[in-house]
Amino acid sequence: MSSKVYVNGNYFDKNDAVISVFDRGFLFSDSIYEVTAVINGLLVDWKAHYSRMEQSLKKINLDFEIKENEIFSIIKNLVDKNSIKEGLVYIQVTRGVGERDFNFSEIESKPTIVIFTQDKKILNTDRAKKGIKIVTLEEERWKRRDIKTTQLLAPSMAKTEASKRGKDDCWFIENGYITEGSSSNAFIINDNNQIVTRKLSHDLLGGITRSSLLSFCKKNNLKFIESKFTELEAKNAREAFITSATSFVVPVIEIDGNKIGTGVVGSFVKEIQTLYLNEIQERLS
Amino acid sequence: MSSKVYVNGNYFDKNDAVISVFDRGFLFSDSIYEVTAVINGLLVDWKAHYSRMEQSLKKINLDFEIKENEIFSIIKNLVDKNSIKEGLVYIQVTRGVGERDFNFSEIESKPTIVIFTQDKKILNTDRAKKGIKIVTLEEERWKRRDIKTTQLLAPSMAKTEASKRGKDDCWFIENGYITEGSSSNAFIINDNNQIVTRKLSHDLLGGITRSSLLSFCKKNNLKFIESKFTELEAKNAREAFITSATSFVVPVIEIDGNKIGTGVVGSFVKEIQTLYLNEIQERLS
Repeated sequence: MSSKVYVNGNYFDKNDAVISVFDRGFLFSDSIYEVTAVINGLLVDWKAHYSRMEQSLKKINLDFEIKENEIFSIIKNLVDKNSIKEGLVYIQVTRGVGERDFNFSEIESKPTIVIFTQDKKILNTDRAKKGIKIVTLEEERWKRRDIKTTQLLAPSMAKTEASKRGKDDCWFIENGYITEGSSSNAFIINDNNQIVTRKLSHDLLGGITRSSLLSFCKKNNLKFIESKFTELEAKNAREAFITSATSFVVPVIEIDGNKIGTGVVGSFVKEIQTLYLNEIQERLS
Repeated sequence: MSSKVYVNGNYFDKNDAVISVFDRGFLFSDSIYEVTAVINGLLVDWKAHYSRMEQSLKKINLDFEIKENEIFSIIKNLVDKNSIKEGLVYIQVTRGVGERDFNFSEIESKPTIVIFTQDKKILNTDRAKKGIKIVTLEEERWKRRDIKTTQLLAPSMAKTEASKRGKDDCWFIENGYITEGSSSNAFIINDNNQIVTRKLSHDLLGGITRSSLLSFCKKNNLKFIESKFTELEAKNAREAFITSATSFVVPVIEIDGNKIGTGVVGSFVKEIQTLYLNEIQERLS
């Protein structure tokens, strides 16, 4: 059965889901996106993802008026039609179709919305159980990484480069400090058993999982600090991990060939994984 | 008559020219582009544009095997079918369609190629005759501006911001120095009557018009230096101008509300415009 894709009001077979070549999402990356995990056919943290989507749209001055419950109902339809038990929902909104012009102030385009699903193992993955090996690469993305736009060539090339080197992913470095992963937030556990992750700014994306994790750390009296950390601090960390919407908490066991801790998944990260998985059960919709 | 658009081997009516929503150009801005001017139905500097396109493809590790003469013949078809006397040809190449994944090392996609034309006044425009007013804005683009990718949201927003302020365009500033315009190279004429433009690096695009201009300066014994210049040097310049593939040489008469020179188009820039227009006649194909 072919997967269904939603494009501007209609459901299409995957192979028939198209957009105009004059869509500004295609010509200018004039678009934003969200990815939400699906577990047991239910969305994880949907409202937080919707809210971040609204923020992204606002930050690029894109007026878009489809309401939360309308999108939610389209997504539920898709998850149902495509029989997604575990996987993800992808939503992209662009400024729409218009005569090619950098200046969009006079373009009366109607936003394009595309939604599709992907089957994907989310729970009990090898990555989550065994941890991942990463490389550090120079930060080359634009300066507004707080906006979740589709300008993703740099992280795409970075992840491909990591893969070519036989590793799983990368962390970006800017002025000696880690910003974040190619599509994840970066965390270390320091000598005081504090969880350290960079403070939010234009330099990194405000991950939904990052935010959920920090809330539940507070609730569970786990110590954390929001602070920049260097490449060296990362390499000397007791443990390290990443968070993302579709992988939750994944241990990092190696950075640039250096083992983190003993080079196997540490007990602290395991504990966080368990706590976090319990936590999200409450936030399925 | 509807304009024709070329997509992957076929010519479509403009409204039927579509790509898959799973095209990496749409999902990841995993694509590059070129824009070439058309004058009297002939292309300006086509070979240089093709060569830069090859460079862009190489820099993002995209294997693409359509030969120069094949693309040239498609373009000639389009210019003919669409009766373009004066305007431009737009070419975009993406990594093609695949299951959404940042890592493209295992994706066996076939590149997508899209070519369309636009009618546009290129010669004797008001902008070229009267000059343009610009604003300076903080550089926010990614760090590989030497690659002509479709990650164009930042320049798109910048040009729109300039327009909202009642101005024509913008120049980007990084660490106090001008990098380039939103889709053009930036030049000033200093107190020694030297043409100054920033040296090529990852910070800016190697404009075809920029390069042609410098070659003909050399030929005509016009003094130029390739060097960074500050915002203040720009504002105090005798004259200033931009170059781009579809506007050639356009005077800048105001920066952030400060008049450049006397605030009208200067004699030096006029001379360059005239010389340049004579020059390109020889390079039409």
